[in-house]
Amino acid sequence: MAKRNLTPKSENMSKWYTQVIQQAKLADYSPVKGCMVFRPNGYGIWENIQKSYQQLLDKMEVKNAYFPIFIPMSFLEKEADHIEGFAPELAIVTHAGGEELAEKLVIRPTSETIMYDMYSKWVQSHRDLPIKINQWNNVVRWEKRTNFFLRTTEFLWQEAHSAHANKQEAIDLMYEALASYREIAEDYLAIPVVTGKKSESEKFAGANLTTTIEAMMPDGKALQSGTSHHLGQNFSKKDAFNISFQNSEGQTEYAWQNSWGLSTRIIGAIIMTHGDDDGVVMPPKVAPTQVAIVAASQDKDIIAKVKEIKKQLQDADIRTASDISSETSLGWKLNDTELTGIPVTLIVGKRELENGKLTANIRFTKTKQKVSLENLIDNVKKILDSIQSEMFKKALERTKELTHSVENYDDFKKIMLGDRGFIKAFWCENEDCEKAIKEETKATTRCLPFTDNKGLVKEEDGVCIKCGKKATHRWLFAQAY
Amino acid sequence: MAKRNLTPKSENMSKWYTQVIQQAKLADYSPVKGCMVFRPNGYGIWENIQKSYQQLLDKMEVKNAYFPIFIPMSFLEKEADHIEGFAPELAIVTHAGGEELAEKLVIRPTSETIMYDMYSKWVQSHRDLPIKINQWNNVVRWEKRTNFFLRTTEFLWQEAHSAHANKQEAIDLMYEALASYREIAEDYLAIPVVTGKKSESEKFAGANLTTTIEAMMPDGKALQSGTSHHLGQNFSKKDAFNISFQNSEGQTEYAWQNSWGLSTRIIGAIIMTHGDDDGVVMPPKVAPTQVAIVAASQDKDIIAKVKEIKKQLQDADIRTASDISSETSLGWKLNDTELTGIPVTLIVGKRELENGKLTANIRFTKTKQKVSLENLIDNVKKILDSIQSEMFKKALERTKELTHSVENYDDFKKIMLGDRGFIKAFWCENEDCEKAIKEETKATTRCLPFTDNKGLVKEEDGVCIKCGKKATHRWLFAQAY
Repeated sequence: MAKRNLTPKSENMSKWYTQVIQQAKLADYSPVKGCMVFRPNGYGIWENIQKSYQQLLDKMEVKNAYFPIFIPMSFLEKEADHIEGFAPELAIVTHAGGEELAEKLVIRPTSETIMYDMYSKWVQSHRDLPIKINQWNNVVRWEKRTNFFLRTTEFLWQEAHSAHANKQEAIDLMYEALASYREIAEDYLAIPVVTGKKSESEKFAGANLTTTIEAMMPDGKALQSGTSHHLGQNFSKKDAFNISFQNSEGQTEYAWQNSWGLSTRIIGAIIMTHGDDDGVVMPPKVAPTQVAIVAASQDKDIIAKVKEIKKQLQDADIRTASDISSETSLGWKLNDTELTGIPVTLIVGKRELENGKLTANIRFTKTKQKVSLENLIDNVKKILDSIQSEMFKKALERTKELTHSVENYDDFKKIMLGDRGFIKAFWCENEDCEKAIKEETKATTRCLPFTDNKGLVKEEDGVCIKCGKKATHRWLFAQAY
Repeated sequence: MAKRNLTPKSENMSKWYTQVIQQAKLADYSPVKGCMVFRPNGYGIWENIQKSYQQLLDKMEVKNAYFPIFIPMSFLEKEADHIEGFAPELAIVTHAGGEELAEKLVIRPTSETIMYDMYSKWVQSHRDLPIKINQWNNVVRWEKRTNFFLRTTEFLWQEAHSAHANKQEAIDLMYEALASYREIAEDYLAIPVVTGKKSESEKFAGANLTTTIEAMMPDGKALQSGTSHHLGQNFSKKDAFNISFQNSEGQTEYAWQNSWGLSTRIIGAIIMTHGDDDGVVMPPKVAPTQVAIVAASQDKDIIAKVKEIKKQLQDADIRTASDISSETSLGWKLNDTELTGIPVTLIVGKRELENGKLTANIRFTKTKQKVSLENLIDNVKKILDSIQSEMFKKALERTKELTHSVENYDDFKKIMLGDRGFIKAFWCENEDCEKAIKEETKATTRCLPFTDNKGLVKEEDGVCIKCGKKATHRWLFAQAY
């Protein structure tokens, strides 16, 4: 593939974003409005995120399962906030097998209701708890305005759902799940995040408490990248799904529940956070291809060496591709690995063979370095590790630059209507102020930031930037995707 | 979980099947008619099948991707046989986002049409070919009569779709995919299969040639377990999806295509093939848990040893679980590992600690053997390997017993209306005879068996068992799931 007419990211990130995704073959528009096609270059990122996050799910002793995509409409209506939140976005099956259905079926926008109906059947005693089940699946939420990865009518995600005999056990797991999202974002995707709790108006439809990881994009807009909810007994109580159990004293109690989800939208965060004017830049840990080996010519010794090195790296579990095609030039091949953001491209030419040193193009820094064929695997692993940590550092630097603390509404507006970014500011926690701020600046409360992994927040004396009334916490505001 | 009132498999396999699936917590009925819930014990089998088959897809250089679940109705209508085959089974979305849709959307019963519309966009030159893309996804086919795993309205599968510049290249890959299915069935699931081609009336809606793997269940009924199709140019031609390309001489040609799919129905084959009166019996290679370690008492040395051995086995990539609960007896625990079919259960008790030898319950043979703690990992691996190959041998033995060659229709009817099984018999390849045989015996042509991996069939002189006219091949008949 050739790099052609890519709008510079620095000039217009939103245009760049749409173009780079198509040119790097990460995704494409589909003939169904609002749905996208995940091409292998884009889907491969998701596969690596899945593998990474699966390890964290295993640690939390969460088991994978699969529940039906169809939900009877009546189920959604059992939790009042839940149906209110999702009603406008539902896709509905009315006909199937050549007949009109007696009860309309909703395509899952999320699976609380269909899963908890089963939990209710499976749980009798406190011995049946906890239940911790995850699904990797597709969900559908009908969106008016869509954007590759960030907002699509159908998207892929994991949704985990737990039920506990004990409230504190549930809350502990909610924070553990939040911490697992921070780990994925920061340690694997090299995206720094702020963790915190959502305001009443921004929390999940049906939750008592929603916690979130929020990332800052280079254009000054925030991206909510994963949420972990404590649902209390909203879904388990008798008039909802009746997940009741006999406790060890023989009394009936209702389960305490959580759900948490991370979706393919986070791929959009990777692209925006790390990409540059020349294309995508992939963090090594989730790059579908970590190393590309390119033949400088069709010389048979060179071709043989490319194949040998490829096998060597693949045997060491480094995701490696090679390009030995005679149909394209070296320049074309390098342009290709640059556009698709492969972290390291190794060039094998005559001189390289003679010297025993390969030329490595480092995508992130756009620098070249020599890599000795001796201890090649160790050398390559070191380079990949270093790229991974440098990418995080750079993104953290930028997030810090884009994070402001303000004390009055004039400064708030100036920043938020200018270069944007995160703003930490006192808010009285009254919804009217939150709404007014949103109307005037497009900024929403992203979260009340946590100062630890257990939900601690900083108490301070202050006044709401909007109404001037007493406020005890600085909330994080931003315009958001 | 307790074993309770499990109908013996030998007495009524169909009753046993439904009961054992629920008791071993492999799956459960869902509140949506025809859909099932894959519980962790059942979904875990699918995850292992996925991991195993992914390696074979990688070998074929097939890349994973994801296409929308929705298909515009007009797309399905572009290939006449295709829409005719699928029309009765479609689930249709008419309303979404609070509005009636301008064009009704079908929930994919299979993705040929939505994928090939994109292929048409992506392919211009012979250099863009071949395309080899796979999806692991959910599909929906509205079924009147459903059965756990074997036939459900929604099911999970992989569907791979290729496009080639060259017909022979496509056909070669079709046979390679068929061979990969044989490998999965026989080497991983321990299920012997017959490979062959489908008759005209049994082939895939839209294919030129459908090849299949067919397995024989213990009740004498066949289970079609995976199909690999050559689609010719039926979908690529101009009036369908127009997947055209410039060949190296600059002329326009249409791509040659394949598709192949393997679904969660094969989990049903595992359960039926290997299970016994006491529950499920899992082949080690795809067992969610390969080894269970059970504490004989709550003695703290024993508990410590259980944990130590568990870690040791897990570190060696043996899928291991332990049960050290104080709430259930040893008998209960062993009953549990028996019902769920865990290949090896290691019992750790006082005597075992003293002797340095554990007692191993082998699920498949229902025998006990001593396993030395010295070289435990090697010992356990050897046992697992031996179970895997013995399970295949036993299943192969039974398939042979249930395979008959007959020369006349009286014998055919006697067997097919009695103990059933596979029958090899001459058929003239006229659809009328095929239909009449089906009406009179419920047997369908399963396939014309191949004698090699490349589609070779045995030519013989014979007469059709039904009409007595000239026939050149013995087809494989059976009643089928």
